[in-house]
Amino acid sequence: MAKVLFKPQNKEIEGEIGENLLELARKTDIFIDAPCNGSQSCGKCKVKLLEGKCDSEKSIHISDEELDQGYILACATKITEDIVIGVPSKLSSSMHGMKIEGSDKKVDKKLFDRGRQLLEDNDLSYSSNIVKQYIELDKPSLDDNISDVDRLERHVRQCAGIPGIDFRVDVLRKITKVLREEDFKVTLTYLKKKNKITILNIEAGNTEEKLYGLAIDIGTTSVVVCLVNLITNEVIEKASSGNSQIKYGADVINRIVFAVRKNNIELMRKAIVDDTLNPLMESIYEKTGVEKDNVVRVVLSGNTTMSTLFLGIYPDYLRLEPYIPPFLKSPNLMGENVGLNVNGSALVYLAPNVASYVGGDITAGVLSAGIWASEENTLFIDLGTNGEIVFGNKDFMMCCACSAGPAFEGGGIGCGMRASAGAIEKVDIDKDTLQPKLTIIGDCDPAGICGSGIIDLICQMLLKGVIDRRGKIQRESNNRRIRFNEHEIGEYVLAFKEDYEELENDLVVDEIDIDSFIRAKGAIYSGASVLIESLGMDFEVIDKVYIAGGIGNNLDIENSILIGLLPDVDRSKFQYIGNSSLVGSYLTLISSDARHKLEEIGSEMTYVELSVYPTYMDEFVSACFLPHTNIDQFPTVKDLLD
Amino acid sequence: MAKVLFKPQNKEIEGEIGENLLELARKTDIFIDAPCNGSQSCGKCKVKLLEGKCDSEKSIHISDEELDQGYILACATKITEDIVIGVPSKLSSSMHGMKIEGSDKKVDKKLFDRGRQLLEDNDLSYSSNIVKQYIELDKPSLDDNISDVDRLERHVRQCAGIPGIDFRVDVLRKITKVLREEDFKVTLTYLKKKNKITILNIEAGNTEEKLYGLAIDIGTTSVVVCLVNLITNEVIEKASSGNSQIKYGADVINRIVFAVRKNNIELMRKAIVDDTLNPLMESIYEKTGVEKDNVVRVVLSGNTTMSTLFLGIYPDYLRLEPYIPPFLKSPNLMGENVGLNVNGSALVYLAPNVASYVGGDITAGVLSAGIWASEENTLFIDLGTNGEIVFGNKDFMMCCACSAGPAFEGGGIGCGMRASAGAIEKVDIDKDTLQPKLTIIGDCDPAGICGSGIIDLICQMLLKGVIDRRGKIQRESNNRRIRFNEHEIGEYVLAFKEDYEELENDLVVDEIDIDSFIRAKGAIYSGASVLIESLGMDFEVIDKVYIAGGIGNNLDIENSILIGLLPDVDRSKFQYIGNSSLVGSYLTLISSDARHKLEEIGSEMTYVELSVYPTYMDEFVSACFLPHTNIDQFPTVKDLLD
Repeated sequence: MAKVLFKPQNKEIEGEIGENLLELARKTDIFIDAPCNGSQSCGKCKVKLLEGKCDSEKSIHISDEELDQGYILACATKITEDIVIGVPSKLSSSMHGMKIEGSDKKVDKKLFDRGRQLLEDNDLSYSSNIVKQYIELDKPSLDDNISDVDRLERHVRQCAGIPGIDFRVDVLRKITKVLREEDFKVTLTYLKKKNKITILNIEAGNTEEKLYGLAIDIGTTSVVVCLVNLITNEVIEKASSGNSQIKYGADVINRIVFAVRKNNIELMRKAIVDDTLNPLMESIYEKTGVEKDNVVRVVLSGNTTMSTLFLGIYPDYLRLEPYIPPFLKSPNLMGENVGLNVNGSALVYLAPNVASYVGGDITAGVLSAGIWASEENTLFIDLGTNGEIVFGNKDFMMCCACSAGPAFEGGGIGCGMRASAGAIEKVDIDKDTLQPKLTIIGDCDPAGICGSGIIDLICQMLLKGVIDRRGKIQRESNNRRIRFNEHEIGEYVLAFKEDYEELENDLVVDEIDIDSFIRAKGAIYSGASVLIESLGMDFEVIDKVYIAGGIGNNLDIENSILIGLLPDVDRSKFQYIGNSSLVGSYLTLISSDARHKLEEIGSEMTYVELSVYPTYMDEFVSACFLPHTNIDQFPTVKDLLD
Repeated sequence: MAKVLFKPQNKEIEGEIGENLLELARKTDIFIDAPCNGSQSCGKCKVKLLEGKCDSEKSIHISDEELDQGYILACATKITEDIVIGVPSKLSSSMHGMKIEGSDKKVDKKLFDRGRQLLEDNDLSYSSNIVKQYIELDKPSLDDNISDVDRLERHVRQCAGIPGIDFRVDVLRKITKVLREEDFKVTLTYLKKKNKITILNIEAGNTEEKLYGLAIDIGTTSVVVCLVNLITNEVIEKASSGNSQIKYGADVINRIVFAVRKNNIELMRKAIVDDTLNPLMESIYEKTGVEKDNVVRVVLSGNTTMSTLFLGIYPDYLRLEPYIPPFLKSPNLMGENVGLNVNGSALVYLAPNVASYVGGDITAGVLSAGIWASEENTLFIDLGTNGEIVFGNKDFMMCCACSAGPAFEGGGIGCGMRASAGAIEKVDIDKDTLQPKLTIIGDCDPAGICGSGIIDLICQMLLKGVIDRRGKIQRESNNRRIRFNEHEIGEYVLAFKEDYEELENDLVVDEIDIDSFIRAKGAIYSGASVLIESLGMDFEVIDKVYIAGGIGNNLDIENSILIGLLPDVDRSKFQYIGNSSLVGSYLTLISSDARHKLEEIGSEMTYVELSVYPTYMDEFVSACFLPHTNIDQFPTVKDLLD
């Protein structure tokens, strides 16, 4: 055995000789970013050996200079003796204070209001099958000594004509005391079915106004929970955090691989339920004083992998041909079945999946976008950790998934990071000096670059001649920001370490990064292109483009078109709709009509499997260019570049 | 803090100065019998202080001689320093190897066969709504890539025409792997409802023959679990043990008092579920190789307090006027709701209660006795820890409860004990020497006397002139077995300590013991008498007397009549029907018709509250005589005594 002390957290753990350093960090709950889940391919789990020796493999992600300074990849390191490890502050803090889209209350309100307006415009009602009712029972006596349950049943039968009542065990456990607390005056919370009601809760006195639900978006990267008053349909509190599963891999493929290895499924389920959702809910309850027994309905939307792991289901067949998801429609679930910290028999509903790579986040997003209600041909693009695209209108809907990877959330790029403090979110390059003007999140030195920053950067580099349309850095420059390494790989320096106190290394973007990003944007564009083409149409038929997902808020549409991420259509057609998955959850929570609509969307949407679609590969290759091999598809960009 | 070491178990626990010794023993899981639950009234928690000092109250249950030897009552003792406590072996072992009626396989089989015959004679079918079915699904491909759940649904819909399927989360968790284990050939276990089935289990290959249920009797004192093959309806294994709640009190009143104190309800629930039932089930699974997921139905019968505590419901109102039980009919329960170690969605059913003191053990007992099917006027007496009495035939049924206490199970009497090794179960007294001839359970020295032994003893003492009809010991004798203490209380010596190696004190029965027993038998007799009288009838109308309960097997009918426990009717009318509660559970388990019949019994049986019945007190007082104040009610005894 040997000890590992992590700094600055000062957490120590003992591990066996030969044990993997990344795995040990995970056991201690030290967060080390590892998007590739320890396959040594991303280079993000770089840590510094401060004391002692270890057995670390060489990596292309560690420069000679870094090697001298003691940098190692945690995933490529086995422990051999007691060591002290320095965890870069950028990494350790990237889960905290993560900037999550739409946390601005005003933006939120607008989006939720827009969703409700959509329901109203389309005559979808807010009716619910869960009701609270205050009742006053006859008091027991020797002459009227029926059981407590029978007394309640008698009252409900006589007053409401309902013949059958089911009682949850939890309710039975408190019924005898609660009945006597305020002299047999109680409020029931119950679920109405045809000839039966199920009592979900019983409270002393009149508490008819306390009825709540949760709308939840489980993103691969971040998770948002909204507490909703089910009487007024208002969102009364919201909390968000990173998805705790992130330490086991950045994208769904890595999560699946990790989950099925050593049967880690339960670990993954707990990471989302116990370590992410329940703490968020707890914080909301504490802030609002709402009791969990009054939270009786939950709607969650997440991609197919997220919903599979949320239920603790073996996920491997999602990623293996022929890509079979375990389920599409939500099973009938109750709070206690899924371990959520709500009323044990709260109705828990998952937005329906369409296929292995188009999940409930997309059906919920489409619900809130309102494509189903409109005659306009609408393109819906979700730029999350995965890219999903929907095209259609009220008569038809097609969808596909693009393996874009986490590029738009700062993944797959050397100095990429999530949109948290220190992230460069906007870049403008001076055409003469090639000096970049950086906009950084938070009042601090730059630590990396996030999705919207990368789009700006690539666009600027193209416009200012730093790179050509293939993404290659121009060889002729002798600007000090343009450098080439021993393998002739070019790089552009965003920030020199000597210019910033807290920067340990130069912040650079190299040709490998650029290539990686171009492939991601090419996947999105070609996905949309093929989807529309499969209907015998082209981008000209588009009336509307909705951009959803975490990146959206800061996304520069003009720049995105310029690099060929988004199609070159009239800018007025674009609309950012925020976390549409969350809004869809919310609408499903407050309206059973909306839920039926959501199920309709899920079952009627046609999924196109791009990987087997004949022309997709060609389209993709053509799109891996700035903006595209066929620049005629981007007339305004053509004009600009000319 | 101070340490207490319990011998011979060698268990040590630390307690606070001033902490109660009995409570400490309970925390260490040392079993010290305490029928009165620590109220210092029964004297059963006698232990020996081996080392150290403690603060112990004086008790009438500790003689001067015992005091000198270091005996103390655990419930009357506070700890003040480190001590060593000797736990009498009789007590520590009385929970183990407890002789439970009917563990004889032949007797069992006869009783279960009799029950099945009853169903068949009355055209109650064995149909069930839980089915196993082997199916072969189409294998998935890129052209047929619907989800696993949809594939199953499609098959079931197409083959069985069932539109709706519900999946338990547990089933979803294994569905993806199980489907692929034997090439999409699986066996479903499902519950049929009207237009819907709920999948309870999925297994690879054909396992249609593996379908099991449990019939359980939760007695206040002992618990029996039977594993039943639901295909053949055979009982394939049986296990029994003491009810672990017993350390918190011998009878239901003491259990209730303990449960509501300090909110011990969850402790009581765990005592029966986690410490009693689940270990019994585990032992059965281990012995038979049956998997718990194949155990899909459970029927339990127990008195109202037992079923209340089994569900963890606050029980106090059962014992407080107007004696309101929390429920009568079984709520809809599943395995996972109640914590039983069976399939999570196994249907769990509790035999219906009639009132606070006539519970599911009696309705189940009446079901198996077949009173509902017969024209004969039948008296049904359950001699368990409580005494319950039913009188009726197929047209009507009346019932009542007698607070007989645990007398028939060895409680309430100085040297009383349960029917385990060392218990005197038969007594014959020589009329000249007054020397008793003892029949002892197990090949060992006598340690105490059990219920059937006490009946024999009282009867023999009466016949041989040791006591008179009031239960008073004759003052004129100078036999050395008859003694009087300083308070002039007489006692009869069953066994002198010098005659037996392992006996630490003389085994005696004194006038207080006899009085206590006479009150118990008087309660039963007067209860039966009043119940029949309330219909304007008398014992002459009785066609049949069924004796049920743990005592029954060894009960001497003749002696029981002689002391006035049972009515003096033709001996051929008596029949012992064993653990009728267990047999009733079994019948309910294998036949839904029987379950309906049981519910009918529960709802139609009329409960007579003896405590408010006008003539009951007089009847009771008259019955507290051997055999009765009015000996004309016992003509054969009158002849004998004359």
